[in-house]
Amino acid sequence: MFRLTVRDRVMIAHSFTGEVFGPAQQLHGATYVVDAEFQRETLDDDGLIVDIGLAHVAVAAVLKTINFKNLDEVPEFSGDNTTTEYLAHWVWGQLAGRVDAGELGAGGLSGLAVTLRESDVAWASYEAPLA
Amino acid sequence: MFRLTVRDRVMIAHSFTGEVFGPAQQLHGATYVVDAEFQRETLDDDGLIVDIGLAHVAVAAVLKTINFKNLDEVPEFSGDNTTTEYLAHWVWGQLAGRVDAGELGAGGLSGLAVTLRESDVAWASYEAPLA
Amino acid sequence: MFRLTVRDRVMIAHSFTGEVFGPAQQLHGATYVVDAEFQRETLDDDGLIVDIGLAHVAVAAVLKTINFKNLDEVPEFSGDNTTTEYLAHWVWGQLAGRVDAGELGAGGLSGLAVTLRESDVAWASYEAPLA
Amino acid sequence: MFRLTVRDRVMIAHSFTGEVFGPAQQLHGATYVVDAEFQRETLDDDGLIVDIGLAHVAVAAVLKTINFKNLDEVPEFSGDNTTTEYLAHWVWGQLAGRVDAGELGAGGLSGLAVTLRESDVAWASYEAPLA
Amino acid sequence: MFRLTVRDRVMIAHSFTGEVFGPAQQLHGATYVVDAEFQRETLDDDGLIVDIGLAHVAVAAVLKTINFKNLDEVPEFSGDNTTTEYLAHWVWGQLAGRVDAGELGAGGLSGLAVTLRESDVAWASYEAPLA
Amino acid sequence: MFRLTVRDRVMIAHSFTGEVFGPAQQLHGATYVVDAEFQRETLDDDGLIVDIGLAHVAVAAVLKTINFKNLDEVPEFSGDNTTTEYLAHWVWGQLAGRVDAGELGAGGLSGLAVTLRESDVAWASYEAPLA
Repeated sequence: MFRLTVRDRVMIAHSFTGEVFGPAQQLHGATYVVDAEFQRETLDDDGLIVDIGLAHVAVAAVLKTINFKNLDEVPEFSGDNTTTEYLAHWVWGQLAGRVDAGELGAGGLSGLAVTLRESDVAWASYEAPLA
Repeated sequence: MFRLTVRDRVMIAHSFTGEVFGPAQQLHGATYVVDAEFQRETLDDDGLIVDIGLAHVAVAAVLKTINFKNLDEVPEFSGDNTTTEYLAHWVWGQLAGRVDAGELGAGGLSGLAVTLRESDVAWASYEAPLA
Repeated sequence: MFRLTVRDRVMIAHSFTGEVFGPAQQLHGATYVVDAEFQRETLDDDGLIVDIGLAHVAVAAVLKTINFKNLDEVPEFSGDNTTTEYLAHWVWGQLAGRVDAGELGAGGLSGLAVTLRESDVAWASYEAPLA
Repeated sequence: MFRLTVRDRVMIAHSFTGEVFGPAQQLHGATYVVDAEFQRETLDDDGLIVDIGLAHVAVAAVLKTINFKNLDEVPEFSGDNTTTEYLAHWVWGQLAGRVDAGELGAGGLSGLAVTLRESDVAWASYEAPLA
Repeated sequence: MFRLTVRDRVMIAHSFTGEVFGPAQQLHGATYVVDAEFQRETLDDDGLIVDIGLAHVAVAAVLKTINFKNLDEVPEFSGDNTTTEYLAHWVWGQLAGRVDAGELGAGGLSGLAVTLRESDVAWASYEAPLA
Repeated sequence: MFRLTVRDRVMIAHSFTGEVFGPAQQLHGATYVVDAEFQRETLDDDGLIVDIGLAHVAVAAVLKTINFKNLDEVPEFSGDNTTTEYLAHWVWGQLAGRVDAGELGAGGLSGLAVTLRESDVAWASYEAPLA
């Protein structure tokens, strides 16, 4: 299997609900360094998994919708804890939608994985096949 | 699949037996930067794979048992070459035991992967499903 | 000159005042990976710049006072923009105070530098001699 | 499963054919930081996936054949776009051949993955089982 | 002293003249990960060394003029070996010019340092005060 | 000022004497990732600070003398604590000797800095002018 990954980043505020979170129940924030991995079984006729320029544009477009925001006030996340793993899944869904919409090119992608690094010592991923 | 990784580190001495090891047959040592990856098919009700605080505590507890030790003198490793890949498997087993014992929370973890980085140019991993 | 650096991290929320900040005027947040560098002209009798354990404890103690906080609500920062460079200076001052108080050991440190990495593509430092 | 990775690097020039490549149609170049991951289901009697020295030698031998070259003038790549993902597959093939030839030791390897990092924000991999 | 660094990257081809370069006399290429460090003695009234957005724009503008180029064919570099250290100095000069032209804001910068990383194991810098 | 850095690594065992070291009084070990920075005020006629090949060879030659060793048994270090900062100074001295001996080329180097990274969260340096 082939994989191509592009990296971008986003800075947000949020708080968590639930005793398990301890001091992270307070309003705080994070920088997420975001790695989006596009998977394909074979290369296309140009020798590509996906055009790297389109990949960067798509990831930046997704992250722009939450960059410099307080996620506690974003209706889409209402009632949810926007943990690193939750956001990895959310970014995955947004990117998968853009793949479906043809924004990443003509097709052939078999899977997608998204990793959010919240610091140098902790990160989370969501990975699943693409329909 | 969801994955959450936490990073810690350990410093040990050891030597290897067997001509294949060349100068590493001498007593030497290593810093291992340790990444422990916890896997889960779905998030729990808090939006978590595992509580990141508990994950850090469990990894630190495992590493403390070998930190600042000469592994050649640790009875548990007697007769074995404590290579990077061997130790990745050993850390995996120790963490899996703590998962079984409920130290990482209420369950639901499906797999575990452990990577030990012995330098900037070499590292090894062991990954397997959790029972 | 000798330098010893230890790394830690902190997660905070904040907002900035001033048109120059664009969307960063909104409440958002950051993870800062913090490198504290202790400088000394010669090593002490133990062969040390500073005890690495004490260095880690001092940096963690400083960062704990702002970790998981909304800096907009911390009185000490009232009226200031808590930019990365501002916070590098603030951490520097806190650590310098702990050096003065003898928390880092018996003396001899000649300078201190603090770097805060706000992402993989941007970081800021403050460096100055110690009195 | 066990995995052992070694890292090396290569510096090449090339150009691409096809409008999708935009300015990368011009002659330009890249440093690829190359990670070769060797996979094995169990460790051998020495406690190894593969001898790390042999792994470094094999990867260096493969990369030497293209290092400091203009890939547009290498007959083997004639007619192909030597994209990062294409080259990940090519390095994979070269290494798999050396595994087959016994250069990595007595056998037992089950899979191989090769990652080429073209920058701090983009990388590509090819992974497949070994026969 | 305060320092703010932003990171970008560029991919080029080139060859070197002189026996000291060995195989690097052949046409080859490199990815340079570029760190531009802006220095200031005190922060401005906004709490800034330099606006990080303007810093990113200026560095990107400089790098765009050589990105995806064969430096052997760029008249400005004619007769010179475009080594990593040479290019660090060249980027420095370009950025210093933009500082002088007011593109980075209202002034106060005291120095500038530029680092180009040609791989994970080699990099070069040029640093000098600003007039 | 110009700076060129090359990276290598070394794996050693050692123990420390003195209560300040706590558990590090036991025989343990470390991987040191070693960065050697060569400084020069101007570039030579080839556009170089120092030939990067010679730099790599010199650093590797120095590190080979301690690689895979128990430093407690190396007569040169007898009676000393081989802390990270102590070893940074020792590597500095060895490299400075090789510069003096002409192994790095025809001269002109003005300074040298050596950094040893003992883990992802701690490192030490020694820097001084060259005679």
